Amino acid sequence: MFITFEGIEGSGKSTQINLLYEYLKGRGYDVIKTREPGGTKTGEFLRDFLLNNEGDINPKTELLLIMAMRAQHVEEVIIPALKDKKIVLCDRFTDATIAYQGYGRGINLSIIELINNFAAEGITPDLTILIDFDVKDGLDRRMNDTGYMDRFEKEGILFHKRVRDAYLKLSRENKERFLVVDGSEPVEKIHEIIKDRVVSLIGSGSF
Amino acid sequence: MFITFEGIEGSGKSTQINLLYEYLKGRGYDVIKTREPGGTKTGEFLRDFLLNNEGDINPKTELLLIMAMRAQHVEEVIIPALKDKKIVLCDRFTDATIAYQGYGRGINLSIIELINNFAAEGITPDLTILIDFDVKDGLDRRMNDTGYMDRFEKEGILFHKRVRDAYLKLSRENKERFLVVDGSEPVEKIHEIIKDRVVSLIGSGSF
Repeated sequence: MFITFEGIEGSGKSTQINLLYEYLKGRGYDVIKTREPGGTKTGEFLRDFLLNNEGDINPKTELLLIMAMRAQHVEEVIIPALKDKKIVLCDRFTDATIAYQGYGRGINLSIIELINNFAAEGITPDLTILIDFDVKDGLDRRMNDTGYMDRFEKEGILFHKRVRDAYLKLSRENKERFLVVDGSEPVEKIHEIIKDRVVSLIGSGSF
Repeated sequence: MFITFEGIEGSGKSTQINLLYEYLKGRGYDVIKTREPGGTKTGEFLRDFLLNNEGDINPKTELLLIMAMRAQHVEEVIIPALKDKKIVLCDRFTDATIAYQGYGRGINLSIIELINNFAAEGITPDLTILIDFDVKDGLDRRMNDTGYMDRFEKEGILFHKRVRDAYLKLSRENKERFLVVDGSEPVEKIHEIIKDRVVSLIGSGSF
């Protein structure tokens, strides 16, 4: 089972992935957590270059770098884990590229879809959890947490609003796959909603 | 005017680019030389990672990394130089990706063509000089020169034979654009052949 977490910066994805991971592990499931961009030795090296390098990286280069990391991650981590019947929890995946590089940066959506499909070997999540959150609150929360902003966090508020709207649009277009939760609710309440949906998905017998 | 140089490892591309560059400069032309993968600060960093990193980089990741570097190079270097009416001499370009990642690694050619077009903004060379050379002699020459082999040079002889055959195939399919020279001829003789073709292209008035 392949579950992805999506949302803008500071929406609380990492907290929720960790809670779900611990819950599933405690129930005896074979579960891994991973992230994009990154998730492999090659990918984490490139992630650091992409996020923290001060040099020029144009939008197409950014897109292709993220796709390079995805190809490595899918082949090296996701496919082997799914073959071993593990539950894979992934922080960001193909939807993030549509939201950030497509709607955020303005790159043509059909080329993104095509390269997404190539890099991800056609793999789509069984469930995508979108933690919807106010853009300004998210950026403030991130800044308070880390005192530092990376390439994406530094983008203006309008960029992040386009990303949030894109995520909501994707969730409406893929109702079956998406669970949208309100990121302003208490952490434990969000975790309960996510847990219920995942337990019901496991119980549905598709896995 | 955009001129690319192609050929297997050790075919003598760099020597010929340098000779043509000095010749054109000596005649007063505004000319630059550049290379792929690389050619920008971002690209040279990624080139070093791609060629010399010991870690795993799968074929799709390799392709997408090369395309990321191309997108940066085309936008940052090639398009501005062509707009300034410079003559651009480039060591490897889109044909190399078809030869190495397509025929060499076996990645689907139509996806390569599509991403090539996206990354290169549809730019095609006015002239491509293919220096055809024996695969074994090329690898021996490279090993003698540097005493070191990078990710591609380390590939077996059959990989490099597929690359050489692919280059020859591309030259037959694009007769107008390609000049094929025999890399076993003396350096000065090859330079004369290349120079004559470039001078005739400049004189044709298309530029």
